[in-house]
Amino acid sequence: MQFDAGELLSKINDPSDLKKLKDDQLEQVSQELRQYIIDLVSVNGGHFAASLGVVELTVALHYVMNTPYDQLIWDVGHQAYGHKILTGRRDSFHTNRIVDGISGFPKRGESIYDAFGVGHSSTSISAALGMAVASQIKGEKDRQHIAIIGDGAMTGGMAFEALNHAGIEKSNLLVILNDNCMSIDPNVGALKEYLTSITTSKRYNRFRDDIASVLSKISEMGPNALGAVKKLEKSIKGTLLKNANLFESLNFRYFGPVDGHDVKKLAKTLEDLRHIPGPKLLHCVTVKGKGYALAEKDQTKWHAPGLFDKITGEIKKSVNDKPTAPKYQDVFGNTLVELAEKNDKIVGITPAMPSGSSMNIMMKAFPERSFDVGIAEQHAVTFSAGLATQGLMPFCNIYSSFMQRAFDQVIHDVALQNLNVVFCLDRAGVVGADGPTHHGAYDIAFMRCIPNMTVSAPMNEEELRNLMYTAQLENKGPFVIRYPRGNGVMVDWKKPFKEIEIGKGRLIQDGEAVAILTFGAIGNEASKAILELAEEGIYPAHYDLRFAKPLDEELLHKVFQKFENIITVEDGCLQGGIGSAVLEFMADHQYSRKVVRLGIPDAIIEHAEQKDQWNIAYYDSAAIMAECRKLVKGIKTDTMVS
Amino acid sequence: MQFDAGELLSKINDPSDLKKLKDDQLEQVSQELRQYIIDLVSVNGGHFAASLGVVELTVALHYVMNTPYDQLIWDVGHQAYGHKILTGRRDSFHTNRIVDGISGFPKRGESIYDAFGVGHSSTSISAALGMAVASQIKGEKDRQHIAIIGDGAMTGGMAFEALNHAGIEKSNLLVILNDNCMSIDPNVGALKEYLTSITTSKRYNRFRDDIASVLSKISEMGPNALGAVKKLEKSIKGTLLKNANLFESLNFRYFGPVDGHDVKKLAKTLEDLRHIPGPKLLHCVTVKGKGYALAEKDQTKWHAPGLFDKITGEIKKSVNDKPTAPKYQDVFGNTLVELAEKNDKIVGITPAMPSGSSMNIMMKAFPERSFDVGIAEQHAVTFSAGLATQGLMPFCNIYSSFMQRAFDQVIHDVALQNLNVVFCLDRAGVVGADGPTHHGAYDIAFMRCIPNMTVSAPMNEEELRNLMYTAQLENKGPFVIRYPRGNGVMVDWKKPFKEIEIGKGRLIQDGEAVAILTFGAIGNEASKAILELAEEGIYPAHYDLRFAKPLDEELLHKVFQKFENIITVEDGCLQGGIGSAVLEFMADHQYSRKVVRLGIPDAIIEHAEQKDQWNIAYYDSAAIMAECRKLVKGIKTDTMVS
Repeated sequence: MQFDAGELLSKINDPSDLKKLKDDQLEQVSQELRQYIIDLVSVNGGHFAASLGVVELTVALHYVMNTPYDQLIWDVGHQAYGHKILTGRRDSFHTNRIVDGISGFPKRGESIYDAFGVGHSSTSISAALGMAVASQIKGEKDRQHIAIIGDGAMTGGMAFEALNHAGIEKSNLLVILNDNCMSIDPNVGALKEYLTSITTSKRYNRFRDDIASVLSKISEMGPNALGAVKKLEKSIKGTLLKNANLFESLNFRYFGPVDGHDVKKLAKTLEDLRHIPGPKLLHCVTVKGKGYALAEKDQTKWHAPGLFDKITGEIKKSVNDKPTAPKYQDVFGNTLVELAEKNDKIVGITPAMPSGSSMNIMMKAFPERSFDVGIAEQHAVTFSAGLATQGLMPFCNIYSSFMQRAFDQVIHDVALQNLNVVFCLDRAGVVGADGPTHHGAYDIAFMRCIPNMTVSAPMNEEELRNLMYTAQLENKGPFVIRYPRGNGVMVDWKKPFKEIEIGKGRLIQDGEAVAILTFGAIGNEASKAILELAEEGIYPAHYDLRFAKPLDEELLHKVFQKFENIITVEDGCLQGGIGSAVLEFMADHQYSRKVVRLGIPDAIIEHAEQKDQWNIAYYDSAAIMAECRKLVKGIKTDTMVS
Repeated sequence: MQFDAGELLSKINDPSDLKKLKDDQLEQVSQELRQYIIDLVSVNGGHFAASLGVVELTVALHYVMNTPYDQLIWDVGHQAYGHKILTGRRDSFHTNRIVDGISGFPKRGESIYDAFGVGHSSTSISAALGMAVASQIKGEKDRQHIAIIGDGAMTGGMAFEALNHAGIEKSNLLVILNDNCMSIDPNVGALKEYLTSITTSKRYNRFRDDIASVLSKISEMGPNALGAVKKLEKSIKGTLLKNANLFESLNFRYFGPVDGHDVKKLAKTLEDLRHIPGPKLLHCVTVKGKGYALAEKDQTKWHAPGLFDKITGEIKKSVNDKPTAPKYQDVFGNTLVELAEKNDKIVGITPAMPSGSSMNIMMKAFPERSFDVGIAEQHAVTFSAGLATQGLMPFCNIYSSFMQRAFDQVIHDVALQNLNVVFCLDRAGVVGADGPTHHGAYDIAFMRCIPNMTVSAPMNEEELRNLMYTAQLENKGPFVIRYPRGNGVMVDWKKPFKEIEIGKGRLIQDGEAVAILTFGAIGNEASKAILELAEEGIYPAHYDLRFAKPLDEELLHKVFQKFENIITVEDGCLQGGIGSAVLEFMADHQYSRKVVRLGIPDAIIEHAEQKDQWNIAYYDSAAIMAECRKLVKGIKTDTMVS
């Protein structure tokens, strides 16, 4: 498919072409860039509203700054489509997020303009400061280092850690605060209210003028007033103007707020800022979804809408959607409300993912018992621990990959104190188009090494419900339930709750010669394999382990006594995963069996469709079948991906 | 040994006794409490200066607040000795940090007055907010929830995440900022400078009075001035006073600064604050080490000085000190400087641990190439990643246990981009008296599952030097070097550097029947065991694996071909540790051997001497000997700790 990039944009192969334009042409090129993003995302999918919001900022930055020598770090990175298009990837942009295509996020290996790989939030200031300090050490005085960070990402603690450090370094750092009042969902927290108070009242900016004019008026009134005025002036200049702004409190020079859609003025402002040394912050107000009316109106829905008709705005159903089987996240959301109706100790916590995790269902049903704490995984976990000490039963829902942010809090604040916190890890396993930064690859390994922890995974929606039901019964201690991105497998999923005995797996299918032990929803690939293998006369047994910790030792003894050949399958890393747990069991009980472990190998799985990633990583039904065949035929297996 | 608690303190068995005192007696009881801490810490050891600094605050809090119904959360917790003594633990305080004695930190299981277990920094506001919100949900309107947090801990990102959230909750939260300008080392960062500017100039407080008096003077001058003044007044009240303070920017009501050593005034202030609802912050200025002149003068040295003569201030050498073998941390510090002299790309990064990690040696030698970034592990790692993108070679030194805070940054910002960052993990393994919160128990498991990562551990000082030397050679990618707390084993350690081939272990001692595979300094326990076993006619072989990732497969093939019995020994958790890595190797290559894994079991190892913890956890020389004997005699082994 051919896409028309427009009169100016079609000639921009890299920022040097952009720089040839007159500043009167910046508006046009911005419009063309915006249209190009709309054209392509509507037919290819991907993140949408965030990139529309920074079109003018992107154009102005590449117009003014000497990229790639000057370094841009886009926090989170899903707003960097315009950046990609302007830096040599216009013609490959239609491959965005597709297997072998360009990444949906800035990525160092992809372009010299991508100064730092991103995906998780709030890293940009730290990275940019590192680069700025390196330039300082190397004596590169006029080099610019620019972190572009949203007001949502600014609530992440490490952004504050970085500001605190940057404020005492003299290096050339520019932080651009892209203030659009949004994370994926509307941004929350005191910082947001503070920024809103600055921008909406416009009082802050006017205030400096006010002071100047009032002081001059008063001093005209003669010597009587002069002493008093001098004193006030000194007080204001010495203390207030320095401290009047949160960022200035941290030794940043604060500029703004400026209109993030006035591209000429932005370019002028950035040009001015180039010449001011030291740490500085430009507060830039933008509208997420700018220029596409529907997206401006419902920014959460249009964060990453999938495919849509760009004229009518109708969002198309993906061909892969199974409308009858719900998303796991929706099973979580609806089940939590059901449980909360009966158990008034239940509370829900999400770090800025109400819609992504479907915690918004709970927030609607029980607003006073659900908390969006902002992009703040560490706080989310310890806040949950605090709630648990008072006898409440927090369900803290965090994507597996983001839970890496709160690993210490899980150990130190929850597990060591054996508190009843239920961790629902959405997006566990490989996640498809978002790629390496977002895979929930490590949680089985990093959770099962923690004392007091229960680590479980449901094979389907009914199991998810029952695990949630079980976890909220009295005194289960810290309890992990991990489940994948995407849809489940059951049409009729809303069954009555049944308690599951902790540490008990289940037999799915009896068989012979080979036992397949699976953990979580990837077990459905084993079921598929077993159906197909039956046609070849191979009949493996299938067990759903359900718990990575504690292991079902009774079940494992049975399996190890009956089977010579065992395959473990997990949607998680092989190093230290549940396969390793099974090997630990085998060694501790001195069994000697052939064990083939399937799961994510010690490699980075690039973006692709989730099913294809299972295939690439070699733990889909085809891999299971191949390994079963080899074991049955006694062929030496090799599970390592080269 | 008997200790005299003083006239008043000896009668205080819990805070209700304290409340019986008149406020005129608070000063005396504070002095007695301070003296009691000096008396006991001087002969028992432990943290010192921090607790002295909050004596008055501790007395005032328990005098005014209705503890334990009102809840105190002491951030980090090493300042809570006074709290322990006032809450029923006066007579057991001499068992502080000793095996079976009380913990050096607040601990929920130990006392109802310990509302939340602490140890790592910056958790208190999150936990207290959780409790406060729980009280709100339960309708406990007059219940107080108080986080006492140092200005050092306030730089940790999660403290800011918690402030951001607390600012939009209406719950009853009091944050007491214990501002002493110190972490263990002097505190750093823009926030510290900001706090100092408030407290030292005293301008901030005076400013409000100034405005009032100046405005009234001017308005006396008649109607001419009145319009202008009104405008200014409105502007000031509406914007400035709200935003004039960083904490007020975040919706906290700010009070202070107050003198943290004026106990009567503190009590009065706290009484007033009880009646003010919503989130509030009391800025309390204290002196770390207050009341012990030497500690006030050198606060870092007296943070945890060990045993000392309380009269002369002479610090006693521990009987366990081997003055000839250096601490691993000092080998790190000195070696880093040696390497940095030759390799000008090397930079050093520490999150607030210059003296604890001996990074201070580098900071003295190369101040412009070393960075104390504050208590900010997440930032420290991503800042290092930023430096590495520019071709520098960062040595980022973080205690193993604190590295849990930066797990996501290690994966997302360093490993995915395969950047050359060297992570030196001090205090890996069990750590002795600091206990469960500080063990570096999990790093082998959580680091070896990350792609691109090299994970190594030196068996002695020479190996540490050579691993550091190797890591800074070109393009090694992310490189972990873990080493334990305490002293090494070599007198003559400063040998010429030798490159170590990545992924290569070494034979320490050839032998028969059993192969002992060790990782890191715990290997010296195996050496000890082998010496003693020889007297019994048992001659196990000993291999130092050196690398948990990549494993030395060549060496392992040799071992698995030669030996029927294998013991792995690690100073780290058994779940997913190097023993599991060896099992993975065994399964992948279809060997069938008896493998006994020794390491930290799936349990919490309480505080005790490090050597005793090895014994309790069953991986010291005695355990190795016992397992060797069993294997040689063919007795079924059981490595599980019941």
